[in-house]
Amino acid sequence: MYAVNNHVSNALKRLLITSTAPAERARALVSLYTLEEKINATGSTAPGVPRLGIPPYEWWSEGLHGIAGPFTNFSEEGDYSYSTSFPQPILMGAAFDDQLITDVATVIATEARAFNNANRTGLDFWTPNINPWNGNLRYQFDAQISQQDLVEYYLPPFQSCARDSNVGAFMCSYNSVNGVPTCADPYLLQTILREHWGWTNEEQWVTSDCDAVQNIYLPHEWASTREQAAADALIAGTDVNCGTYMPNHLPAAFAQGIVNETVLDQALTRQYSSLVRLGYFDPPENQPYRQLGFEAVATNASQKLAYKAAVEGIVLLKNDGLLPLSLDSSTSLGLFGGWANATEDLLGNYAGVSTYLHSPLWAAQQLNVTVNYATGPGGQGDPTTGGWLSVWPAASASDVIIYVGGINNDVEEEGMDRGSIAWTGAQLDVIGQLAQQGKPMVVVQMGGGQIDSSPIVNNPNISALLWGGYPGQDGGVAIIDIITGKAAPAGRLPTTQYPASFINEVPMTDMSLRPGRNNPGRTYKWYNGTAVFEFGSGLHYTNFSASMTSNVSAGFDIAELMATCHSSNVTYPDLCPFGAPVQIEVTNMGNTTSDYVTLGYLAGTFGPAPHPKKSLVAYQRLFALSAGSSATASLNLTLGSLARVDDKGNKILYPGDYSLLIDNQPLTSFNFTLTGDQVMLDEWPQPPANRTGQGVSGFEDYFVGGYGSDQKPVST
Amino acid sequence: MYAVNNHVSNALKRLLITSTAPAERARALVSLYTLEEKINATGSTAPGVPRLGIPPYEWWSEGLHGIAGPFTNFSEEGDYSYSTSFPQPILMGAAFDDQLITDVATVIATEARAFNNANRTGLDFWTPNINPWNGNLRYQFDAQISQQDLVEYYLPPFQSCARDSNVGAFMCSYNSVNGVPTCADPYLLQTILREHWGWTNEEQWVTSDCDAVQNIYLPHEWASTREQAAADALIAGTDVNCGTYMPNHLPAAFAQGIVNETVLDQALTRQYSSLVRLGYFDPPENQPYRQLGFEAVATNASQKLAYKAAVEGIVLLKNDGLLPLSLDSSTSLGLFGGWANATEDLLGNYAGVSTYLHSPLWAAQQLNVTVNYATGPGGQGDPTTGGWLSVWPAASASDVIIYVGGINNDVEEEGMDRGSIAWTGAQLDVIGQLAQQGKPMVVVQMGGGQIDSSPIVNNPNISALLWGGYPGQDGGVAIIDIITGKAAPAGRLPTTQYPASFINEVPMTDMSLRPGRNNPGRTYKWYNGTAVFEFGSGLHYTNFSASMTSNVSAGFDIAELMATCHSSNVTYPDLCPFGAPVQIEVTNMGNTTSDYVTLGYLAGTFGPAPHPKKSLVAYQRLFALSAGSSATASLNLTLGSLARVDDKGNKILYPGDYSLLIDNQPLTSFNFTLTGDQVMLDEWPQPPANRTGQGVSGFEDYFVGGYGSDQKPVST
Repeated sequence: MYAVNNHVSNALKRLLITSTAPAERARALVSLYTLEEKINATGSTAPGVPRLGIPPYEWWSEGLHGIAGPFTNFSEEGDYSYSTSFPQPILMGAAFDDQLITDVATVIATEARAFNNANRTGLDFWTPNINPWNGNLRYQFDAQISQQDLVEYYLPPFQSCARDSNVGAFMCSYNSVNGVPTCADPYLLQTILREHWGWTNEEQWVTSDCDAVQNIYLPHEWASTREQAAADALIAGTDVNCGTYMPNHLPAAFAQGIVNETVLDQALTRQYSSLVRLGYFDPPENQPYRQLGFEAVATNASQKLAYKAAVEGIVLLKNDGLLPLSLDSSTSLGLFGGWANATEDLLGNYAGVSTYLHSPLWAAQQLNVTVNYATGPGGQGDPTTGGWLSVWPAASASDVIIYVGGINNDVEEEGMDRGSIAWTGAQLDVIGQLAQQGKPMVVVQMGGGQIDSSPIVNNPNISALLWGGYPGQDGGVAIIDIITGKAAPAGRLPTTQYPASFINEVPMTDMSLRPGRNNPGRTYKWYNGTAVFEFGSGLHYTNFSASMTSNVSAGFDIAELMATCHSSNVTYPDLCPFGAPVQIEVTNMGNTTSDYVTLGYLAGTFGPAPHPKKSLVAYQRLFALSAGSSATASLNLTLGSLARVDDKGNKILYPGDYSLLIDNQPLTSFNFTLTGDQVMLDEWPQPPANRTGQGVSGFEDYFVGGYGSDQKPVST
Repeated sequence: MYAVNNHVSNALKRLLITSTAPAERARALVSLYTLEEKINATGSTAPGVPRLGIPPYEWWSEGLHGIAGPFTNFSEEGDYSYSTSFPQPILMGAAFDDQLITDVATVIATEARAFNNANRTGLDFWTPNINPWNGNLRYQFDAQISQQDLVEYYLPPFQSCARDSNVGAFMCSYNSVNGVPTCADPYLLQTILREHWGWTNEEQWVTSDCDAVQNIYLPHEWASTREQAAADALIAGTDVNCGTYMPNHLPAAFAQGIVNETVLDQALTRQYSSLVRLGYFDPPENQPYRQLGFEAVATNASQKLAYKAAVEGIVLLKNDGLLPLSLDSSTSLGLFGGWANATEDLLGNYAGVSTYLHSPLWAAQQLNVTVNYATGPGGQGDPTTGGWLSVWPAASASDVIIYVGGINNDVEEEGMDRGSIAWTGAQLDVIGQLAQQGKPMVVVQMGGGQIDSSPIVNNPNISALLWGGYPGQDGGVAIIDIITGKAAPAGRLPTTQYPASFINEVPMTDMSLRPGRNNPGRTYKWYNGTAVFEFGSGLHYTNFSASMTSNVSAGFDIAELMATCHSSNVTYPDLCPFGAPVQIEVTNMGNTTSDYVTLGYLAGTFGPAPHPKKSLVAYQRLFALSAGSSATASLNLTLGSLARVDDKGNKILYPGDYSLLIDNQPLTSFNFTLTGDQVMLDEWPQPPANRTGQGVSGFEDYFVGGYGSDQKPVST
């Protein structure tokens, strides 16, 4: 990997002893650095230390749904000119298949290693992202979040990654939370992330978003000088500065005495420990990963997995029985809409170069049918009708009409937010005119953000509606296979599909979840209006029944639950199992083999009012249930599944009446009661008093940014 | 132009008699058309009537600041591969030079003819545009405008074009006004435009924006069917449908009997009359315009005019004496910012292919100095600091620093609106670091929309600030020539530069102008906060004094003014002169030859409260006043200049105290009084009662869209 300098010191030798703990090896290296060399190492494009033989290293690569990013170098042709590009996370999330995500991440990691071995990318990949803050205003946005919403809704994904999964790195975001830019906030990065969640392995690090250290100075105006911004970030616990602000301004910060070398050494130790763990300083020949070449990239298995991920995530929202379509060689299939011949659009953003791009049109052309294609409406919102002219003769010539449209990265991606959640008038017009032909018709709604499809749902001439997200390199095939019955849909909507008027009821920047005087509430837990489609919606080509087969008591004593929990010596009582897993036997009552996602919601009147309508607490996807067959889902509930959060952010187990509901229109349910005194499962660290005043009254907490997906809707 | 069919009828012969009135010739042609052929002619891409030898015609070309548009065909190289591209209207407006605008329009028209003669474009050019409505929401936006604001502020530009200048065509817009889509509104298109403003020549026509007829159906949902939308537009007075909606849906509308052929004939007569007037049906050999070839395009004079337009519009906003810069061959000039090497950015949108693109960097490189260039911050709002690294060594090597940045079409153009009117934090950071070097420094603020430059104004290390808009093909030379003193600045800011916090005080979609309980008011007339720079701001390289040299009475009797007015037999009393032109003698008190824009404002406590702070009523640009010399501006005030508008939209001459102020910081002023009873100058037609209910209470009027410039700021 690099030529070791002749003047290699004892310390460098210690670095190279593979049996030593990573942090110790890293400290040995850092001890050799001058202050200047240390400061140089704080940026994402680290220059290395030539005098010690330490090569440059680039921390910034992207891995949202395949290897990508500004420093991942695809060749023009041949080996390393492509990789596997999976669907966007929002579609993979709709699969509710944890193993799928593990498999996808494994492929991305493997392909990353292969590209790294060819010096074409780094070893650190950043993913995913979220961006619902009025475009460029995100650089200065201050998210005001109540302590209760923070802990009950916004932080759990971070807690899962940090406390329960020990993820390797975090990214702090551009925005402030309750007055403090997240990359300068020791309460978030130290008190919550590292101390409360125990995310303290020395090889774990925090990077700023690119260049979130800069905007601590401007436009946040949190720090009054550039040096203070760099010092604030480093001291708060930002270990890598994606960008150049820390390397540029830490020298002056050190000169001013506003930061010390201990915290700098800590940051560098974290960085280098992680590289040590990755084998960066070890001889390649002993490391299996370092042997991976292009033969490990875009394998047949990876391509199948990309297809599988798309099929599993696609959601059937309406079907009057038309689907699956019966086609024969005499069928004339009409394919319309801006997504019908989508190529790059299939990938969404943060995409590398995919192995191929199979559009719905391409997939339809592989069938033994006649295909009539016309694109129809142009770019998002473009009402010009010139492009529509070719639609009508093509539609007239067709027996079946498929319209594939919606939204794409023209209106939703990092730096953009949508001001409307309606289908464009132009698309609805063309869809309506196509429907007037009275032919069998299917609409496929693409894109990550939700769109109000009620005009399509309410049109009796449109038989079926699918949601296809950003389905990746083989997305067109997945869509056509589901439409034609080669695959059966079982995805579930990962968002609430609100009526278009929702945007007039809640400002995009209002982070509060619970309904209020001027606010219908956000998310499936709180929204008190009538959703067009609820979170978890999804039809099948068959019907399922479910029944609970495990023996579960209908009454629990909280003290007993806690005694059992404590006897297992747990660190985090909210992770204690709530009894044995709940067994749900699911039976395919119809004639079509299909997967089934078992969704377990809790509802009830426990804990502080208002009570959420329901909360998803467990899920399991069952695979390929053939007609008449059964399979059993095992739902693992914890004490935390039952807990609620009080207005200080404490997680508490409350006495009360609980219902476990299986599926959105429950196929079965189970009521039980908790009795006895409430018990605190997790006492939430309060923000320092001097920080509390930074927030608007009533909002006293903070938020780690940088999680989610660009395709995050207005709210889930 | 086309081969006349052998079966040419008597009617066609009538069409070809050049001595006949255009409308009669047009009617002769239309009388030959079948209903189907007439309907086919309603779209912007008219197919013509081959059986009659009438060729296809494309109505849609763009001429905002040079010939452009989707159907203007530039060749790859050689003749017709370029034309003259002038600054955007917002910068040319800053010149306050009516003759300049006439000259520019003449060049555009001449170049259009030359391209048309080569079959490379049409004969109808559309310009300008406005777009302040939340991006794609403009297709469904309903502008709620009070009758008073409508007549006093929003409609005057349209009235000038229609009533007072007899413009050839209007465009109705995507949005609704007070509940009615403008292209479907007979109150706007017939009652106001044609009847009240007397815009009744038969060769004048209204086109829809592209495809504003479609959105009458969706998303406006004004018409409940597509046929009704097409019929509504035609009946309301939309004569050309940019798009295909009328040709597509009028056949069914006729079948349903919801529209009749008379109104269709009227639309076609208007269209063809205008083509007749343009000589379209006449032998080319008799028409001088038809002889124009590429030698008439991009002439030396046109290129000089493009440069002159840029120089005249550029505004000097701050100068501590640094400008004009003294340079010599030993000077090292640092040039930074995203606009420093701008090329296409210079043109802004609706641009064709310009003759050349002279960036500020190119212009600087023509000087006999050393130029150090680095771009600095990336795209709008992009905070990543990687691009900054090359700035610091280049700045260190420079004696003088020029930063050229701001905003561009990445954040402001049709379909986009800005959510911030602050400079991006990244740019302010780099500008601040450059200023810290303590070297002579100039900032040039580019783009059309206003940006709060107070951090630059307040930075004592920044000596000068210019506003450069979108200065067109030679814009870089104009900027550098002004900085170096080869030209002297005399442009005036055509917008109010609000503090960045203004966007939090007035929603973009709030059309009301007057200050209210939760609203500081809009425009220089009403905004009650402290502007960063007021409308009309603009410094010079010299100082001017002014004095009124005409003899004007200090008291006027309204009845006498009206008697004089009526004795001249005017149609529109508001156009009656208010006495003789006011003569303002302007003297250049300094040492630098310079133009001077004489701005005449009226202020006072006349008419309904609240009273505007002031209103621009007249202006004249004086040219090249050398040191110590004087010139006289002649300000033509009319009774309309003095009038106010009541809450029904009536224009009234009120008794009261008036002040005429010359310039923003008045160089001279004159007070006078009107006595007697108020007199109505223009009784405003009220909307039909059944329409009044469409608006929000208190808003009962309507607005013709489609005017202004893409670079229109939040409000002027």
